[in-house]
Amino acid sequence: MRHTYREQLEGILGDLVTMTQKVAVAVRVGTKALLEADLHRAELVISQDEEIDEMRTDLESRAFQLLARQSPVAGELRMLVASLRMVTELERMGDLAAHVAKIARLRYPECAVPDPMRGNFTRMAEVAEKMVVSAGRVLADRDVAAAQDVQDRDEEMDDLRRSQFRSLLSDDWTHGVEAAVDVALLGRYYERIADHADSMARRVVYIVTGEFPEDETWPEP
Amino acid sequence: MRHTYREQLEGILGDLVTMTQKVAVAVRVGTKALLEADLHRAELVISQDEEIDEMRTDLESRAFQLLARQSPVAGELRMLVASLRMVTELERMGDLAAHVAKIARLRYPECAVPDPMRGNFTRMAEVAEKMVVSAGRVLADRDVAAAQDVQDRDEEMDDLRRSQFRSLLSDDWTHGVEAAVDVALLGRYYERIADHADSMARRVVYIVTGEFPEDETWPEP
Repeated sequence: MRHTYREQLEGILGDLVTMTQKVAVAVRVGTKALLEADLHRAELVISQDEEIDEMRTDLESRAFQLLARQSPVAGELRMLVASLRMVTELERMGDLAAHVAKIARLRYPECAVPDPMRGNFTRMAEVAEKMVVSAGRVLADRDVAAAQDVQDRDEEMDDLRRSQFRSLLSDDWTHGVEAAVDVALLGRYYERIADHADSMARRVVYIVTGEFPEDETWPEP
Repeated sequence: MRHTYREQLEGILGDLVTMTQKVAVAVRVGTKALLEADLHRAELVISQDEEIDEMRTDLESRAFQLLARQSPVAGELRMLVASLRMVTELERMGDLAAHVAKIARLRYPECAVPDPMRGNFTRMAEVAEKMVVSAGRVLADRDVAAAQDVQDRDEEMDDLRRSQFRSLLSDDWTHGVEAAVDVALLGRYYERIADHADSMARRVVYIVTGEFPEDETWPEP
């Protein structure tokens, strides 16, 4: 019985890792849909977001059942509570990837991103995807040190966002209001995906160490 | 001992209600700062967000301690798990109110909102604040029926946001790119505050009934 319980716990963590992989794919494919004005890929990301939502419902219910039946303490309780939060963050990251795809669909057959901003978004999406993948790895291997990598990338994300605002608000912006609004919102979505990945990595640190990383070394959660 | 435990549970709910009130004030004062280009009020909301963050840390730790020491089941477990989530959502709503204040501060002494958009933002902020207040009331009184009110207002919020986009993207928009970007992001912040309030109200329904309201009658959480 105790063995089955451990297996159930590990099963939840394993499915969280799978969910992280699905989110990473959604970010990658959503970005392709955006930058290539690819309606098929956009629809794919939007419809697959439902699978991510379903995984959330299933994982929440399993974590709650374990809490109710096993009354875990210490490390196992920390793990279950952190899982309940990670699953919410992963679902949210999936929504944000779907938001990117929805803007791609809205502007189809045009591309929502003006040419001079392609480099910025390509890099932003790469950083966001890598952060999601790293957060998944931190979780899969309970690798606390690797969480620092997620945090470092979040700083690059902030730089990319600042550079985006500089382009948007410079006198050279000739792409009009609609493109500016799209860029501002898209930038916000990628930034939030990155924030959630960072927050996920911290939760793993919390599972492993019992301390939630805050203060000087980590920006606010 | 059992009595003290009940008191601790009620204390957590009571402090969540207090936190909700603080968030409602942050939304109201942040909006005043925005619409009146009031630097003092903007700074106030930004600095008071730290209090909301501290309440979160404190409440999380108390809820976790109760989970660990009392191994609650059924309704009490549901309540504690829901509390852990509500506290995250309230902290996030506080952040979003602070984001509004930061845009007010960034544009000071100018007003970030162009004149023709004042009515839209005044109403958006009213709806958001009322949703937060109602969510607090739903929580304080465990009033499941009142949760419907929160949901109805969320529909008005969606309408306001759509009307905002119509203004932004119409040929009559003469306020330039910077104002458009501000309006798009501000609208997003109010919309997210409303989403979190709606989600909070659902969590109360879950505490009371054991069923999380989804499907036809409620839009996705």
